[in-house]
Amino acid sequence: MPVTIPASHADLFSKKAFGSLATLNADGTPQVTPIWVDYEGGFIFFNSARGRRKDKNVRRDPRVAIAVADPDNPYRYLEIRGRVVDITEQGADEHINRLAKKYLGVDVYPYRQAGEVRVKYRVQPEHVSSMG
Amino acid sequence: MPVTIPASHADLFSKKAFGSLATLNADGTPQVTPIWVDYEGGFIFFNSARGRRKDKNVRRDPRVAIAVADPDNPYRYLEIRGRVVDITEQGADEHINRLAKKYLGVDVYPYRQAGEVRVKYRVQPEHVSSMG
Repeated sequence: MPVTIPASHADLFSKKAFGSLATLNADGTPQVTPIWVDYEGGFIFFNSARGRRKDKNVRRDPRVAIAVADPDNPYRYLEIRGRVVDITEQGADEHINRLAKKYLGVDVYPYRQAGEVRVKYRVQPEHVSSMG
Repeated sequence: MPVTIPASHADLFSKKAFGSLATLNADGTPQVTPIWVDYEGGFIFFNSARGRRKDKNVRRDPRVAIAVADPDNPYRYLEIRGRVVDITEQGADEHINRLAKKYLGVDVYPYRQAGEVRVKYRVQPEHVSSMG
């Protein structure tokens, strides 16, 4: 059941607040990794590159969880459970540049590696808790 | 296969570095939540209370992942996958007080609720990656 981020905590997405993304490995064990996130139109978006572990994981099993903590107060955070509902390379370069602007203050993502193909993931939140 | 935290990143556990703990819900979906952590004798320890979601989850399925980020540099972090190998109430009150000392600078954990039974969890790391 789609849900939205409570207005009380929507400001987290305008801060340099990192997400912690949990995905599922092939053997069902969880994996957790820091991510840049944004939120638009009721969806959470993150970005990775083709072939990375989280890319492989969410293509196999779209079920994810994301915690987003306020950089100004680690006791204020969102816990989100949901599902990756779209995976695309279209617009993924522009998206990583927008995230680089938000998190690093630069116009172009500076860490691109040779041959890297960026991928943009859309997450439908299905359960959200807020703390703090 | 047990592994240890690389010496290059062991300092994270002496900082007020939060962990992001991923556990598995009954339906196999991941859950992720911020935690206080410490590290001793090759094991990672965290603390919760009886009956909480993460308590129920790790009793059902001990497979977890933990990311620990440097509060002074979010691009420096550990990604740990492992297993909860011990769950005990013994020493759990002393343990949450030690964590409160580290994270809050107080001698006694101030957020205890009436009737709450603290629980201490020991995690055996099985795979560790370090970044930054």
